[in-house]
Amino acid sequence: MRSFEVCLSPALFEFRTTTENYIVVVVDVLRATTAFCAAFDSGADRVIPVSGLAELMEYKNKGFLTAAERDGRKVDFADFGNSPTFLLQQDLSGKELAYSTTNGTQAVEKAMSCGNIAIAAFANLQAITVWLSEQQKNIIVLCSGWKNTFSFEDTLCAGALAESLKLSAEYAISCDAAVAALTLWQRAKNDLETVVKTASHYQRLLALEQHADLQHCFRLNSSQSVPVWDGRGFSDLSVNKD
Amino acid sequence: MRSFEVCLSPALFEFRTTTENYIVVVVDVLRATTAFCAAFDSGADRVIPVSGLAELMEYKNKGFLTAAERDGRKVDFADFGNSPTFLLQQDLSGKELAYSTTNGTQAVEKAMSCGNIAIAAFANLQAITVWLSEQQKNIIVLCSGWKNTFSFEDTLCAGALAESLKLSAEYAISCDAAVAALTLWQRAKNDLETVVKTASHYQRLLALEQHADLQHCFRLNSSQSVPVWDGRGFSDLSVNKD
Repeated sequence: MRSFEVCLSPALFEFRTTTENYIVVVVDVLRATTAFCAAFDSGADRVIPVSGLAELMEYKNKGFLTAAERDGRKVDFADFGNSPTFLLQQDLSGKELAYSTTNGTQAVEKAMSCGNIAIAAFANLQAITVWLSEQQKNIIVLCSGWKNTFSFEDTLCAGALAESLKLSAEYAISCDAAVAALTLWQRAKNDLETVVKTASHYQRLLALEQHADLQHCFRLNSSQSVPVWDGRGFSDLSVNKD
Repeated sequence: MRSFEVCLSPALFEFRTTTENYIVVVVDVLRATTAFCAAFDSGADRVIPVSGLAELMEYKNKGFLTAAERDGRKVDFADFGNSPTFLLQQDLSGKELAYSTTNGTQAVEKAMSCGNIAIAAFANLQAITVWLSEQQKNIIVLCSGWKNTFSFEDTLCAGALAESLKLSAEYAISCDAAVAALTLWQRAKNDLETVVKTASHYQRLLALEQHADLQHCFRLNSSQSVPVWDGRGFSDLSVNKD
């Protein structure tokens, strides 16, 4: 029996109880991990998470495409913000994208010590579930949150993963946070649009008039991508990749 | 309008967003904050939280009564563990009790920087709600959790506080964690006994055969005590105090 654990904030990752043979699944529904999926859907070869903007500028100077957001807004010098719907309209075939966000890339950095990292969002829920089930590993879902605080939408996505993995494989829910995430998801799933409106980051993006993204980020299974850490960045392990 | 914020773990307290004019309400349902209430119900004058066992021994040598628990078990040299039902059977009239637990006293230490600290559990839900409503301050509920991880029963109690305060005064829920706590509570409250059985610390105490405590800790409003920090420890500000 494999264990399924949820960390509700990057600041809680060091207190995880699962210590062996695990994959960390980073979730940042609004919008980093949804945007990672979009980049692969638009043909990107690799997405490289970058924490600081100085480092991102170095990538830009080396000719990489860059995406960056701070507090929900695109960073001026970057080619893209972290709008998944905008990324979906681009042709990124064969490109490598260096990517820096407020919360998502920080969560990835925390998970780096582990080595096995995958990326999940509502967009690739089914695709990542199938891939995870095949890995025979314990799972820690790491919610990116908002500046280390609890985020409702990431927790709902962790709960959706708990549900879909439970249906497809042999996982034991191994912590109270996973029970809570699953409970919140099961209550929300039939009316997700209404429930997520109570989330603070939903309201923050609504104020920034990111309507298309808000709709896209809560649509299930629009993407087949399976972003997995390859030692240098994330590449897409989806079987249906062209 | 006053704000109502929930910190789901002591490790998240430093990331709170409320920074002015607030009271921290520490919750450790199983069993520290329920036991604090019990100590006052048995007549204690003051409960002094102590983090380390060496410090607790110093209190003992000075003639204080001592209570201490580690990993759910009573510490040998202490007079009491942290069983509220055992404390309820004692006569602590006029006594000061030095108290050290795995999680509860650590949460209190985190809150110390603030100065305004109160203690809540299901046991004193109504009493603490009435007192909090009169304080005209913002509220941060700090869930003690289990070794810095999320705890289901503390989160449910935070949700219960959200509900009862909302009914009695003008509070705005100001973070996603508070929304989640309230949601989980509203789903659980009509069948609390069944829902809390999924909590890991409930199972831990069940294995230690603490049946009476488990029943007591989830009983609402058995206590009128209002434990509030007085600069040296907690004393009971309940109006009905003899």
